Amino acid sequence: MWGLIAKVTLLPGKRDEMIEILKESAADMPGCLSYVVAKDATDENTIWVTEVWDSMASHDSSLALPAVKNAMSRGKAIISNFERIAVTSPVWGAGLRAPHH
Amino acid sequence: MWGLIAKVTLLPGKRDEMIEILKESAADMPGCLSYVVAKDATDENTIWVTEVWDSMASHDSSLALPAVKNAMSRGKAIISNFERIAVTSPVWGAGLRAPHH
Repeated sequence: MWGLIAKVTLLPGKRDEMIEILKESAADMPGCLSYVVAKDATDENTIWVTEVWDSMASHDSSLALPAVKNAMSRGKAIISNFERIAVTSPVWGAGLRAPHH
Repeated sequence: MWGLIAKVTLLPGKRDEMIEILKESAADMPGCLSYVVAKDATDENTIWVTEVWDSMASHDSSLALPAVKNAMSRGKAIISNFERIAVTSPVWGAGLRAPHH
């Protein structure tokens, strides 16, 4: 498995819009076992995206999906900072869904 | 929903042992919608734990579960640093399991 923890800071007032963009783009990505979008509890302009994939290749392939390309294009206009906090190898999880391709 | 992203650094050589401890303790926690244990891709002594709960109360209650208390006791001996990277309010997720109490 391959994982990513990202901290995304939006321009003021744009957090809810970014959450909607991610919900639309990430609903059905092949090889994605978990994708959680969360508001930071203290910073009102920040979200956390935590992802688990069956492989890095599946993640990389997702970047070419039309829905994801569209989301990246829309997000670019309202993201002030995107930080990869960690790249990981998930080894165990409760709540991971079964792989589907 | 309530979430936590934690970075846990172990004493050298103790990472696999900590992963086993977490697998045993986190397998069946009421109100836990997702619990992913991941190795950091670059630091061989670090793991990331990302959690999603139906509420902060469920998380807090889990700390009193015998399996979790046992894990914390065993972990204390091999953890060199525990850092809460973020407390979150998850708003959407693919791969979250249904709540069960």
